[in-house]
Amino acid sequence: MSLADQPPAAALVFQTLLAHGPLTRAEVGRRTGLTAGAITKVATPLLADGWITELGRPVVERASGRPATLIAVRAERARFVGVKVTGDELIGVLADLTAQPLATARAPLGSRDVGTVVLAIARLVTRLREEAGAAQDGAVHSIGVTISGDVDGQTGTVSYSPFLDWRRVPLAHLVETATGTPTVVENDVRALTVAEQWFGAGVGLSSFALVTVGAGIGAGLSIGGRVVSGAHGVSGEIGHLPVGGTDRTCTCGNTGCVEAVASTHAITEQARQATGDPELTMAEAVRRAHDGDAAVRAVFSRAGHVMGLALAAVANLIGPERIIISGEGVASYDLYADQIRQTFADHAFGAAADCDIVVRPLPFEEWARGGAAVAAQHLFAPVK
Amino acid sequence: MSLADQPPAAALVFQTLLAHGPLTRAEVGRRTGLTAGAITKVATPLLADGWITELGRPVVERASGRPATLIAVRAERARFVGVKVTGDELIGVLADLTAQPLATARAPLGSRDVGTVVLAIARLVTRLREEAGAAQDGAVHSIGVTISGDVDGQTGTVSYSPFLDWRRVPLAHLVETATGTPTVVENDVRALTVAEQWFGAGVGLSSFALVTVGAGIGAGLSIGGRVVSGAHGVSGEIGHLPVGGTDRTCTCGNTGCVEAVASTHAITEQARQATGDPELTMAEAVRRAHDGDAAVRAVFSRAGHVMGLALAAVANLIGPERIIISGEGVASYDLYADQIRQTFADHAFGAAADCDIVVRPLPFEEWARGGAAVAAQHLFAPVK
Ligand SMILES: [Zn+2]
Ligand SMILES: [Zn+2]
Repeated sequence: MSLADQPPAAALVFQTLLAHGPLTRAEVGRRTGLTAGAITKVATPLLADGWITELGRPVVERASGRPATLIAVRAERARFVGVKVTGDELIGVLADLTAQPLATARAPLGSRDVGTVVLAIARLVTRLREEAGAAQDGAVHSIGVTISGDVDGQTGTVSYSPFLDWRRVPLAHLVETATGTPTVVENDVRALTVAEQWFGAGVGLSSFALVTVGAGIGAGLSIGGRVVSGAHGVSGEIGHLPVGGTDRTCTCGNTGCVEAVASTHAITEQARQATGDPELTMAEAVRRAHDGDAAVRAVFSRAGHVMGLALAAVANLIGPERIIISGEGVASYDLYADQIRQTFADHAFGAAADCDIVVRPLPFEEWARGGAAVAAQHLFAPVK
Repeated sequence: MSLADQPPAAALVFQTLLAHGPLTRAEVGRRTGLTAGAITKVATPLLADGWITELGRPVVERASGRPATLIAVRAERARFVGVKVTGDELIGVLADLTAQPLATARAPLGSRDVGTVVLAIARLVTRLREEAGAAQDGAVHSIGVTISGDVDGQTGTVSYSPFLDWRRVPLAHLVETATGTPTVVENDVRALTVAEQWFGAGVGLSSFALVTVGAGIGAGLSIGGRVVSGAHGVSGEIGHLPVGGTDRTCTCGNTGCVEAVASTHAITEQARQATGDPELTMAEAVRRAHDGDAAVRAVFSRAGHVMGLALAAVANLIGPERIIISGEGVASYDLYADQIRQTFADHAFGAAADCDIVVRPLPFEEWARGGAAVAAQHLFAPVK
């Protein structure tokens, strides 16, 4: 049975169980707006084909006080591979239907050439299947590849990835051909946002923003349980908000971008100027700042100020319940945290300042898991 | 029969018909994900109580090719009053269930005192009912009051309205007491966004932003068919995005806000400085700019630049299909339109620049109609 052939109500029930299950039928009804009859009708084939299951122990329904059976997604029913592509390595996760990891693996990338990367992804998928013994338990249902840049998830095309210097790469099609497995492609930060919404620091929130800081600065926005994708494929480009002044030029060619001041590269460059040492590395800049070097501390402080302006812009526009800060840049977060919070508090408008800001280091395996979650979400055509 | 007692599926069907009707049952099914049986079950009491109706002429269903009956909301079943409160007058509309206006009226405000405003709203509601002959056709179901500032729609409280200098005013309760009619309160720009989504330039779009320019600068964001409300009651505060440089101070106390450069007041103030004429009015500034006064033209140009940065911030974060620019400031839009478009094109990231920008003058009656639309949406508890 293909889930894509099921009626929209089946997708609604299944996705509700994925996100919030196990639930009683009455709870599914409250969350979906479907009647008990409609739920039974769509649940029957899902039960018969093993996509969902009734849990043995009955619970007492909160609303009615009567004993009721919980239904839940059967995690082992399908497997997905999530892959995060970075500039120099692939990080892969094999996960079950609930995006729980069964195996993880990494592979270095010798080149950023499209053919090389596609082949490396195919090899990584094979390795993950072998490590998890997937051959005996069932095939991989689909693959979710995540990548930084401008991604059109509908067509599976990487429109533009500055990091890899790719333009209009039909990545989903290429990976499908190389692996023989259906593949979806998503922007890496949006995929991580799906993961956080599903089983991370975004669970149960009406809205949140995930901001990632590092070589690039991006954001995923979750509003009303859905990750904002942007009508033209662009959203969450917090790194290119024009709040940073006019003295530094961004990789995108503009001045004023957050990335031009606060990315790892930008911080290193400014620290080199500040110290007069053209060989200074980011690690050394962090060390010097910790040792109290005022000039280098000022560089981190400016980065924090510009980040604080960007977070205030997000809060003033969207009003998220929480902003989660992650990415490799959080390793040196202590050097600009105070400035971020100060500037945010100054520029958040009225009650927008009540937005909760949390810092959350997430390993690349968690990003890869986002790819698996995106693949699992594609079991059904997207529900409106 | 109270609609609030109906199951969630009834709200889903009714709101789908309000937004997209008339529709065949099959079309309702496709849009809601409800089965035919579930639709019949919820439609029966709605038909019996006159909230919806079957249209006489059958149509040929696109999907099946069979003749089918259209169902639609019965516009005359309920009436709503929408009121927009400005600093010096009230604008009111009496509308039917589909927010079609039946009567409009304006009333000047002698003072911004809460008691005075509440009394004036009550009088305006009476006038509208009389003008439309509502007494004989049926009572007003509910009132939607819209107001600029920080509004908590859940509790019906105006948390803070800088314009009226109100703080924590339980406006819904006060108007209910004065009129004897249930009342909801919403931020005026969000209400206008609901109106645009429902029957304006936002119909059928996956996402759009409505930006209003004038005494204040605000925005409403519609994403996936819902207007973003903000977890803490704040959203769309485009006027307080920190993109405007540090030389001018905003009414909110910060520097860098869009409003501090591009509001009517800010433009007038800067034009006075530029001309050395401390009495210059906005109308005179517009005239001078049209006459080619370079110093005054530069003031409008800077306002356009800062507006363009703000629109680019919206596009880069949300990626809306369209940005609609409205508000009394569009009367002089020709003076900064080029600069807005130029700066937007420069700072929109990648495909975000494809966002359609349209200018749309909307009279205050349209804003008031937004209040009626918000009241009509509250017939049911909000659907998740
Ligand atoms: Zn940039
Ligand atoms: Zn401000």
